Amino acid sequence: MTLYSMQAIGQVRSPYSETKDIPKGLGAKHEAEGVLEILPEFAAGLADIEGFSHLYVLWLFDRSLGFDLTASPPSDNRTHGVFATRSPRRPNAIGLTVVELLGREGPRLHVRGIDMLEGTPILDLKPYLSSIPAEKLRRGWLAEAEARGKS
Amino acid sequence: MTLYSMQAIGQVRSPYSETKDIPKGLGAKHEAEGVLEILPEFAAGLADIEGFSHLYVLWLFDRSLGFDLTASPPSDNRTHGVFATRSPRRPNAIGLTVVELLGREGPRLHVRGIDMLEGTPILDLKPYLSSIPAEKLRRGWLAEAEARGKS
Repeated sequence: MTLYSMQAIGQVRSPYSETKDIPKGLGAKHEAEGVLEILPEFAAGLADIEGFSHLYVLWLFDRSLGFDLTASPPSDNRTHGVFATRSPRRPNAIGLTVVELLGREGPRLHVRGIDMLEGTPILDLKPYLSSIPAEKLRRGWLAEAEARGKS
Repeated sequence: MTLYSMQAIGQVRSPYSETKDIPKGLGAKHEAEGVLEILPEFAAGLADIEGFSHLYVLWLFDRSLGFDLTASPPSDNRTHGVFATRSPRRPNAIGLTVVELLGREGPRLHVRGIDMLEGTPILDLKPYLSSIPAEKLRRGWLAEAEARGKS
């Protein structure tokens, strides 16, 4: 088995210090503002990033240990395969969040949409470029759980 | 510096065996079909995934060595910070692709939208849940490069 090594390019400054503080489940809104603090040695990689309104942030669930192949998301009382959920207990503990870029001060990116804990290691940033039109999306068990929640 | 270890959960079966075969640059369409072949030991993690129309695939640029902090994308003749591009030469060589899930046969997911090379290691799969409305997106240097290309 080949192992691939990753290192942090920076850290998240978040209002959330504990997992229980992060809004979860159906209808949870992620409007929290925070900062993506990029390490000085990687700051040159941010050139021109301020032209994008939204970014993908790839980060590490660094306070999650081990993984399960099934997960019980807060939005449903049934279990699902871990790859059909956003559970932190995944074989590779990578998180993915789309944030809105509010502004940049050198290596510090002010963003809205934080759902990570304070100090979370950042692995990568990418421009968010395109969207699947809402009418073409099927949202699997989540849509079903929402429908049950409303009835 | 903390290093984080990642391992493949499967491999991409792609029609592309060389980087030059993959459509690139402005207006490139990724309509290629392929298979995400998940390793047997992780297959239980796919339960219920067939309910989603689109998936995020996190994968490794395993044939890219080293990184640069600036990149010259095929869609522009100017350089940009690597985090404002999808260049493979990134500090953590993680690729991110949204694919359409066409069907599932056990641990094999048939998908459309492949832009990876044959044999690419897969790190993670996540359901694609929401879209930023197109009118709220700013696409930075890419929109500018497109405008220049049209004039």
